[in-house]
Amino acid sequence: MPLSRAPQRRSAFRIRVNPPQVVVLGFLGAILLATALLSLPIAHAPGVEVTLLQAAFTAVSAVCVTGHIVVDTATVWSPFGHAVIVAFIQIGGLGIMLVASLIGLALLRRVTLRGRMLAGAENRGVTTGDAARLARGILLVSLVIEAIVAVILTLQFWLGYGVALPTAIGRGIFLAISSFNNAGFAPFSDNMIGFATDPIIVLPMCIATILGGLGFPVLLQLRRELRRPLHWSMNTNLVLAMTGLLLVLGTVVIAAFEWSNPDTIGLMSPVDRVLVAFFHSVQTRTAGFNSIDIGQMTSESWLVMDVLMFIGGGPAGTAGGIKVTTFAVLLFIIITELRGEGAVNIFGKRLSRAVHREAITITLLSMAAVMSATIALMVMTHLDLDVLLFEVVSAFGTVGLSTGITSALPPAGQLILMLLMFLGRLGPLTLGTALVLRQRRVLYELPKERPVIG
Amino acid sequence: MPLSRAPQRRSAFRIRVNPPQVVVLGFLGAILLATALLSLPIAHAPGVEVTLLQAAFTAVSAVCVTGHIVVDTATVWSPFGHAVIVAFIQIGGLGIMLVASLIGLALLRRVTLRGRMLAGAENRGVTTGDAARLARGILLVSLVIEAIVAVILTLQFWLGYGVALPTAIGRGIFLAISSFNNAGFAPFSDNMIGFATDPIIVLPMCIATILGGLGFPVLLQLRRELRRPLHWSMNTNLVLAMTGLLLVLGTVVIAAFEWSNPDTIGLMSPVDRVLVAFFHSVQTRTAGFNSIDIGQMTSESWLVMDVLMFIGGGPAGTAGGIKVTTFAVLLFIIITELRGEGAVNIFGKRLSRAVHREAITITLLSMAAVMSATIALMVMTHLDLDVLLFEVVSAFGTVGLSTGITSALPPAGQLILMLLMFLGRLGPLTLGTALVLRQRRVLYELPKERPVIG
Ligand SMILES: [K+]
Ligand SMILES: [K+]
Repeated sequence: MPLSRAPQRRSAFRIRVNPPQVVVLGFLGAILLATALLSLPIAHAPGVEVTLLQAAFTAVSAVCVTGHIVVDTATVWSPFGHAVIVAFIQIGGLGIMLVASLIGLALLRRVTLRGRMLAGAENRGVTTGDAARLARGILLVSLVIEAIVAVILTLQFWLGYGVALPTAIGRGIFLAISSFNNAGFAPFSDNMIGFATDPIIVLPMCIATILGGLGFPVLLQLRRELRRPLHWSMNTNLVLAMTGLLLVLGTVVIAAFEWSNPDTIGLMSPVDRVLVAFFHSVQTRTAGFNSIDIGQMTSESWLVMDVLMFIGGGPAGTAGGIKVTTFAVLLFIIITELRGEGAVNIFGKRLSRAVHREAITITLLSMAAVMSATIALMVMTHLDLDVLLFEVVSAFGTVGLSTGITSALPPAGQLILMLLMFLGRLGPLTLGTALVLRQRRVLYELPKERPVIG
Repeated sequence: MPLSRAPQRRSAFRIRVNPPQVVVLGFLGAILLATALLSLPIAHAPGVEVTLLQAAFTAVSAVCVTGHIVVDTATVWSPFGHAVIVAFIQIGGLGIMLVASLIGLALLRRVTLRGRMLAGAENRGVTTGDAARLARGILLVSLVIEAIVAVILTLQFWLGYGVALPTAIGRGIFLAISSFNNAGFAPFSDNMIGFATDPIIVLPMCIATILGGLGFPVLLQLRRELRRPLHWSMNTNLVLAMTGLLLVLGTVVIAAFEWSNPDTIGLMSPVDRVLVAFFHSVQTRTAGFNSIDIGQMTSESWLVMDVLMFIGGGPAGTAGGIKVTTFAVLLFIIITELRGEGAVNIFGKRLSRAVHREAITITLLSMAAVMSATIALMVMTHLDLDVLLFEVVSAFGTVGLSTGITSALPPAGQLILMLLMFLGRLGPLTLGTALVLRQRRVLYELPKERPVIG
C-alpha cells in the first residue's frame, strides 16, 4: 500500500482506531438520519405516500451504495428527496473509502511497527493529521472524477437530448455521484434503459464506476506513480489485473448468453450488443445500473452475474462484494497447490500466509450469509431460486441489480435485504480488519497431524 | 490414520504407487466392461430395447456408485442385468476404498520417511504384502456388514411382506450391497417409496450407508480401538463428529421444511415424518435412495440437501462429495481466524498448514465444476436453476438423488452428468493425492507482502 509514503508530521492527538464499532455505529447513524429525512413530506413528490419501511429501505440502499429500490426513484421523491439520496450516497461512498484507507494505514503502521522498534525508530500510530490528509486526498480525487463525468453527462443531456439546462445539470450530478460511488440509483423510472446505446452517456458512467471500484489506495498510487509500474504494490497489481480480467470475461459471457435474446440485446446492432454487454459487466463491479430489463435476461446470465457480483470490486473503494483481491488470493492458492509449490508468490512477492486464512474466512462466511438469506426468502415467498439468489447476491454485493422482485417481497423479506446490504457493505471490511487485529503471536505449537481430505 | 499399526513384514516386491493414472485407468476399464455387459441382450428384460447411451450411463452410475438412472432399474434390466449392476457397484465401492486406503498408507509412510531416516530406521514403501492385507481387511469388513444387512432385509421381505424366498434374497443382497457402497440403486420402480415408513427395511439400510460412508480407516480404528477413544486419530475424530453433526442437522432441517408438505411427509404420523427426514438426511451422505418423491419436496429442502450432498461423507470410504474432513478443515480455519489464533488446533493436535491450501483447492475446484456444469445444462435445457443445481450436485457428489429430470435431459446433458459422476468419484481423491505428492520443500522465500482484502 502506498499510504505509508504520505509525508509524516507529529500531531498532538492520536486516534485509537477501534474500527469495527466506530464504522458500524457511524453507518447506523447515517441510515437513521437518512430515514428521518426521507420520511419528511417535503421529500416526497406531491400526492405520494411513502411508508416508513420504504423510507428506511431507500436510506439503507443509499448509505450502503446499493441501489436496490422498492419505490420508483424518479417519480416518488421530490427534488429534496433526490438531494437527500445523492447526499447520502456521497457520504456512504466517501465514508467507506476513508474508513477503509485509515484502517489500511493503521494496519500498515502496525505491521511495520516491530521493524521500526528494532531499528530504534519512532513508534507512532495513525494521527489526526494522517486522517485529515487522507480525507483531503479522497475528497479531491472523488470530486475531480465526479465533476468531469457530471460535465460530460450534463452537456449530453442538454445538447444531445434538448433537456433544460437546470434539469440536465441535476441529472448529470446525480448520475456522476451515483456512478463513482457505485450506487446505481438513477433519476429515471427505467434506470438507464433509455440510454442503452448512447456511448456518450454510458461510457463516462462506466469509467467513473470502474475508477471508484478500484479503491483509493490504487487511485493514489496511479496518480503518484503512473509511469513507474515496477513500484506498484501487490494490492495495486492485483486489483488492476483482476478488474481487467473480470471486465473482459463478463462482457464476453454476457454477450454470448444474450446475443440472440430478443427481449434484451438480440435485436440491436452487433456494436450495441457489445456495448450493452460491457455496460452490464461493469455494473457487476458493483454499481448496479441497468440499460436492459434484467428480468428478461437468461438464467445462465444471472448465474454468471451472481459470481461476478459476489466477487465485487477493489478494496477500500466504493465497490462491494468479497473484493477482487480476496478472490485473487484464493486463485493464487489454487495455482500454487496445483504447481506443488510451498509458498504463494504473486508478482515476485510472497503472499503473507496469514492472508490465506483471512481470505477463506471472508469468502466462506459470505457464502454462508448468501445461502442463509436465500433459504429464508425461499421459505417466505416460494419464488424461484434463480431470481432469489440474484436478489440476495446483488444486495450482499451492494450491487442493486434486480430481476424486478424487490418491491413485491413481503416486509420481512425486505428487512432481510436491508440486513444483507448493511452486512455486505460493512461485513467483509470490519471482519477483515478484526481478523488482522486479532492475530496473536504463537507462543507454542501442538504436535501436528493431518486428516485424509478429498 | 491407524493404518501404520498394521504388522510389518518384508516383501520381495514393492509397489510404486502412481495413484492418479492407475485409479483413473482402472475405473475407465471397469466402466467399459460394465457398458459392454449391459449392452448384451441377455441383460435386458424381454422385449426391452436399451440404447448404448443408456447402458453406458447405467455403467458409469454403477461403477461410480452414484445411482442416477435414465431407465427404470426394476423393469428394464433382466436378472443378469441386475447382477451386473450390483457386481460393479461392489467393484466400484471396494475399489475406491482399497485405492484410497493404499494411498493413505503410502502417504503416511512418505510423511514419516524423513523421521525414520533420521533415526536410522528402515526405509520402506508400500509393499504387495501391505496391499493384500488391506484388501483382505476391507473385503472382510464390507462382507460382514453387507451380510448382516442382507439377512435382515431378506427376512423382512420374506416374512413381513410374503415375498417368495429367492426374490427376497435377491432384493436383500441387492439393497445391502447398494446401501453399504452408497450406490442408491434399488430393485423397485419407485426406489424405496413403498417402504418409507417401515423401519425394519430403512434403518438397516441407513446403518449400512453410514458405516460405508465413514470410510475404511475409521472402521478399522473403531474395530481395533473402540474402547480407547483417546487413541483415535484426528481423521477418526473429525469423521465421527462431522457425520453425527450433519446427520442431526439434515434431519431437523428436512423435517422442518417438509413438515406440512402434503406431497411428501405432511400426511404421515409425526414419528414417520421424522423417520423419513432422517432417512433422507442419511441419503445425502451419499447413498441417494429416496422414500418420498424428491421432485415434490420444497426448493428450500433441495438447497439444503445441495449443501449436504456437496460435503458428502468420510474419506477412503464409499461416499462421495468433497468429504466431511475437507469441510471440517475449512470450518476449523474459520473458527481459528475468528478467535485470532495463529495455528489451527483440532482435538489437541495442530492441523498441518499444508492441509489448509489442499482443502481450499479441492473445495473451490469442486464448486467451479458444479457451477460450470450447471451453466452448461441451463444453456442446453432451460430447466429451472433449482432442479438443475440439485441434479448436478447430486451427480458430482455421487449421490444419485434426482427431482426426476435425468431421463428427460438431452444426450449431451446426460454425458455431462456421466462426466460429473466420474469427476466426483475420482476428482477429489486423485486431486488430493496429487497435491500431497507434489509438495516440494521450499529452498528460498521471497520477501512477503499482503494486499487489502475483504
Ligand atoms: K450498487
Ligand atoms: K450414491
